[in-house]
Amino acid sequence: MNVGFPGVDDIKLLPETVLAIRARFDIPLCIDSPNPKAIEAALKIAGGKCLINSVNGEEKSLKALLPIAKEYDAALIGLAMDDNGITHEPEKRLAIADKILDRAIKAGIKEEDIIIDPLAMAVSADSKACLITLETIRLVHLKLGLNITMGASNISFGLPGREDLNSSFISLAIANGLTCPIANPEKITAAVRATDLALGRDDFAVRFVEYFQSRT
Amino acid sequence: MNVGFPGVDDIKLLPETVLAIRARFDIPLCIDSPNPKAIEAALKIAGGKCLINSVNGEEKSLKALLPIAKEYDAALIGLAMDDNGITHEPEKRLAIADKILDRAIKAGIKEEDIIIDPLAMAVSADSKACLITLETIRLVHLKLGLNITMGASNISFGLPGREDLNSSFISLAIANGLTCPIANPEKITAAVRATDLALGRDDFAVRFVEYFQSRT
Repeated sequence: MNVGFPGVDDIKLLPETVLAIRARFDIPLCIDSPNPKAIEAALKIAGGKCLINSVNGEEKSLKALLPIAKEYDAALIGLAMDDNGITHEPEKRLAIADKILDRAIKAGIKEEDIIIDPLAMAVSADSKACLITLETIRLVHLKLGLNITMGASNISFGLPGREDLNSSFISLAIANGLTCPIANPEKITAAVRATDLALGRDDFAVRFVEYFQSRT
Repeated sequence: MNVGFPGVDDIKLLPETVLAIRARFDIPLCIDSPNPKAIEAALKIAGGKCLINSVNGEEKSLKALLPIAKEYDAALIGLAMDDNGITHEPEKRLAIADKILDRAIKAGIKEEDIIIDPLAMAVSADSKACLITLETIRLVHLKLGLNITMGASNISFGLPGREDLNSSFISLAIANGLTCPIANPEKITAAVRATDLALGRDDFAVRFVEYFQSRT
């Protein structure tokens, strides 16, 4: 849930949107805003287990959001960027993820409630962008063992053949440790099922076959 | 080039086919037969640099084909199977590839003329089949540094959604070290270009964009 738009009073609109969605759907909500006050206002009336999108390694962000996540027992997406902005070095993105995890645990948040976003940037702007993301995913998975999300389709911004690029990239990302991408299920599920099958995670191809049968 | 069909006299038909193709196309040929005598008959009149498909780790195969490859300066695909048949252990497939390389070099064949086929089997018959192939590719690339081929679409035999599965699998295989698959370019090139781009091997997305522009 994101209500971002110029001029919007998100401290008012975000909780109103929570109520509107709660009235129709009994599902966990992901509350997405750059404004900690809007997130807190939404969590206050959301109920259930929510996911906050997002904290990052900046002191300001950690100080504002970790106590809120703890108070409302929310899970938390941690972006691998900090006061110095976005680094191109996977080891440094890992260090930021590690810092967020460390600070979250000290704030009383459970390790399993921390999900890392390694940052997926447009490969049209930087030819190494996907490679940096893939290596960050591998490191976070290997060293921290946390769940990993990302805005999976960001990488293909401005290019033709976006679905083909997104599919190949998500296959590589899953192999490296991606667990819960933000993606369009209509377009990406075929690649996810195929990757799970190729990686030996779908005995007798049950989920793969069911998916394709459901589409005919 | 393969003329396999029950009752066919391949020692006669394979060289005839070489001549027919040579008359129309000035390209390197891949000579594919289980019969070393047919391969030799084809190489005798083929000219240029040929690729033999294939030798394997069986003594009989090595003894029959290595001298022929040496005599005609042909490159050689080595299948990762031997007298004990097909193993499910990547380390053992690597050991067979290593043996083929070793024997080929002793027979006077150049290292760069050896291409390993890690064996791609149907994942519908064995849920770990792709995983075993992917790990074999990783090991052969890491330990031997040889070029790697395979019949890439074998893995999806008997399943729906074959193109999606083949695409995800080839993305993972390229990331692990696959260099020259036997595949249908019409169906697989999008995934190959996308994977190269995601792995940082296509500066400014030049080849990726050219491919999609060529298809519109």
